[in-house]
Amino acid sequence: MSTSPHIDLNADLGESTAGNPVADDAAMMELVTSANVACGFHAGDPHHIAKTLRQAKEHNITVGAHPGYNDKAAFGRRYIAYNPAELADEVLYQIGALDALARAAGTKVSYVKPHGAMYNAIVHDHDQAKAVIEGIKAFGDLPVMLLPGAVAIDYAEAAGLTVIREAFADRGYLPDGTLVPRSQEGAVLHDAHQVADRVLQVARDGSVTAIDGTVLKVNADSICVHGDSPGAVEMTRQIVRDLDAAGVVRKAIV
Amino acid sequence: MSTSPHIDLNADLGESTAGNPVADDAAMMELVTSANVACGFHAGDPHHIAKTLRQAKEHNITVGAHPGYNDKAAFGRRYIAYNPAELADEVLYQIGALDALARAAGTKVSYVKPHGAMYNAIVHDHDQAKAVIEGIKAFGDLPVMLLPGAVAIDYAEAAGLTVIREAFADRGYLPDGTLVPRSQEGAVLHDAHQVADRVLQVARDGSVTAIDGTVLKVNADSICVHGDSPGAVEMTRQIVRDLDAAGVVRKAIV
Amino acid sequence: MSTSPHIDLNADLGESTAGNPVADDAAMMELVTSANVACGFHAGDPHHIAKTLRQAKEHNITVGAHPGYNDKAAFGRRYIAYNPAELADEVLYQIGALDALARAAGTKVSYVKPHGAMYNAIVHDHDQAKAVIEGIKAFGDLPVMLLPGAVAIDYAEAAGLTVIREAFADRGYLPDGTLVPRSQEGAVLHDAHQVADRVLQVARDGSVTAIDGTVLKVNADSICVHGDSPGAVEMTRQIVRDLDAAGVVRKAIV
Amino acid sequence: MSTSPHIDLNADLGESTAGNPVADDAAMMELVTSANVACGFHAGDPHHIAKTLRQAKEHNITVGAHPGYNDKAAFGRRYIAYNPAELADEVLYQIGALDALARAAGTKVSYVKPHGAMYNAIVHDHDQAKAVIEGIKAFGDLPVMLLPGAVAIDYAEAAGLTVIREAFADRGYLPDGTLVPRSQEGAVLHDAHQVADRVLQVARDGSVTAIDGTVLKVNADSICVHGDSPGAVEMTRQIVRDLDAAGVVRKAIV
Repeated sequence: MSTSPHIDLNADLGESTAGNPVADDAAMMELVTSANVACGFHAGDPHHIAKTLRQAKEHNITVGAHPGYNDKAAFGRRYIAYNPAELADEVLYQIGALDALARAAGTKVSYVKPHGAMYNAIVHDHDQAKAVIEGIKAFGDLPVMLLPGAVAIDYAEAAGLTVIREAFADRGYLPDGTLVPRSQEGAVLHDAHQVADRVLQVARDGSVTAIDGTVLKVNADSICVHGDSPGAVEMTRQIVRDLDAAGVVRKAIV
Repeated sequence: MSTSPHIDLNADLGESTAGNPVADDAAMMELVTSANVACGFHAGDPHHIAKTLRQAKEHNITVGAHPGYNDKAAFGRRYIAYNPAELADEVLYQIGALDALARAAGTKVSYVKPHGAMYNAIVHDHDQAKAVIEGIKAFGDLPVMLLPGAVAIDYAEAAGLTVIREAFADRGYLPDGTLVPRSQEGAVLHDAHQVADRVLQVARDGSVTAIDGTVLKVNADSICVHGDSPGAVEMTRQIVRDLDAAGVVRKAIV
Repeated sequence: MSTSPHIDLNADLGESTAGNPVADDAAMMELVTSANVACGFHAGDPHHIAKTLRQAKEHNITVGAHPGYNDKAAFGRRYIAYNPAELADEVLYQIGALDALARAAGTKVSYVKPHGAMYNAIVHDHDQAKAVIEGIKAFGDLPVMLLPGAVAIDYAEAAGLTVIREAFADRGYLPDGTLVPRSQEGAVLHDAHQVADRVLQVARDGSVTAIDGTVLKVNADSICVHGDSPGAVEMTRQIVRDLDAAGVVRKAIV
Repeated sequence: MSTSPHIDLNADLGESTAGNPVADDAAMMELVTSANVACGFHAGDPHHIAKTLRQAKEHNITVGAHPGYNDKAAFGRRYIAYNPAELADEVLYQIGALDALARAAGTKVSYVKPHGAMYNAIVHDHDQAKAVIEGIKAFGDLPVMLLPGAVAIDYAEAAGLTVIREAFADRGYLPDGTLVPRSQEGAVLHDAHQVADRVLQVARDGSVTAIDGTVLKVNADSICVHGDSPGAVEMTRQIVRDLDAAGVVRKAIV
């Protein structure tokens, strides 16, 4: 166990559509320590997912499954009123598919981070939270990356799964610790230095500052960064420079 | 090893769309020894696939993966000019997904049978045949169910995979041993007794009679039957009655 | 205008998946006066939709567009938290597509009935109700078939669209006039005579009896019947026999 | 009729996936005179298509329907062995859908240009060519944009449809006048000046130079340009500057 401060940086990768990656996966592979790899339901196709997995292997990055709602039309970003049993089976299907591709690439699925509307739903929706955890548990005892405060954490812990608590580098926080919805002002931080400061605050102090100035305690094990625009990649580079300068080690949790 | 004549009966199951099964899976589970279970690309969704797998487990039926082209609109029945590397990754993805669902149901994927247009393409298309075998091999050393004469058999054997040669109970044969295309007359046999006689001929004599009367040698390890209409289920029941009466044992290959 | 009592019978048709019709369209064409034809989003593909439209033309049945959520995996039956502007455009897209196929078949779209979860959402969800009506209005001044009490009725009337109020032959009613959810007991009536009595009660008395015995006033212009099982078709035949015996004329509204 | 030399510039627009446009539509709207707008099958969703149509209306650009194979996974770029009747109905469906969205945006579909693998298939595949033309004709007497030499031209002319012959600004030509397949070297021209020279040669001399140096006669009415990368947009700007400098007027055909 390292005694110097350390933090995991995770990013959503492998989210191509028709072969066009949504993020600059190659650039992000140089920066992050954990890759949440799309599983083909909200984004990604087997061939480009496989390519992402080979890149993750090359860069020695930990691979997480990033299952989403079956809704490519909206990139898995809108709530769907799933039958819980269907949701559990979809999560299991996605993890199994990704793990097969990962093993062929010489790596494996080491944790699970639900995507988009599924991630948000299981903050408060007990039926879906329970279903998602059941789907993961049916595959195996994989750690689950979740928003601190999510009801899914209770179900994960009850199922004996390790929980990886996550903070967001570039998302606004409400005073209750949930994220500012994307439809509202302040949802996304655009200034690279502000974002880098946020990350340092999380890594060193275990806190974030909400949009109203409230300082929230967050015991985050990992910080989510983005690579889905030239600006986003550059922002992540700034984060990494500041972490390095501050002596905070980037290191995967799993 | 049994000394009495025996044969494997396989059927395509789990091919629901929007939860409506295409075949009478419950009835077929009483009759067949191997279930080719849809993997969600040409048909099937994770929840109904999982249900099919639990039924297969209950009936102690061997489970095979039945991957298809990514073409639900046409049930995987039309040729698609895939990039071979994409096809290999899609096959691997499907097997991995199905195996995860199967293991949660207490069983596992024990062989692979490609579906529809993919099955037909790899009879003669070397690039796709090679790709499909690569996708299977990347998952593991699973036996592959194929049409006798398919070029995919060469690639499977070169990869060290066991080949299960298959005959069709209710499909017309051309004198060269390939199936009469569905677009042509004689493609499908509709008389239950004719079909049952075909199955007995395969099981006992190792031969089928083509549409022009030619008797073809077929070393079939398994016979494909159908359950996608009330008539098809009844036809399979007739096959089973005739096999039982003739002392031919139904027995899975794998 | 007829002075004898009359009623419109509507049914969902053209809802095939991979070419397998969900209902016995041919049988239903002999019985109903209005066909709600799938538009390809929750079910149906252009080719089988076109076939349904030609059948409707032959039988001189009025054609309605039956747009649904973009969710073939669940047959448009689960709520999706659409962005309203996206929903409006999807409704317009579907009506335009269907009308083009209808005109090629010698008929046209004469009304719109939203499907499944969309139909249910716009009973109470103002944003989606407004969006669906905007999508319809953008195509033209088509009548809209809706559940009595739906908030969408207000938006339709405000937009100057004619509203066709609908009752359900085989669905249970709650005392507030909404349908018993499919997840609850009493959601679907299974007895053909009970269903036929319901239809007569609606057509002659303008009322339905809710599951608790409450007699509700319903000014229904049309009654929805089903053809998605052998039993459902036979049930509709019973309805037609009883309507004929009672001198109630089947007649399209539009 | 203008007496100065003139040419139509067309580009594929509205090809978003999950709301991410594939090309810089806004930039291209300043440059082209005709927009081939995706119809939702190979790319595009109703909402973003509608936005593209409103932009085209604002910029007074002629709108063409750009129907593709039902294959979002591969962006409509791989051959699919369609049943011709299904293909005809899919083309009709797509044009109808787009026209409804276009009319709501204050414009309309003025021509049709098939996309990707469909465009290439109907150069030589008679059944698909006939089907595509039937689908277009069923909607109305719309001009069709095609590759010179395509067998679809014969079917279009037999059906009484106007043919718009097209050249490609940035694609290599084989000596027989067909395009160098994307899988081969020389398929795409990358130098902006070379591309601009090509366009001038087409517009003024009615010829293109094939990859082996052969000068081919092409009576092109329109030239296809691309906007799917920063480089592609800049290339198109170069084309426009050179056309303007040479006194060639950009002008839609329809």
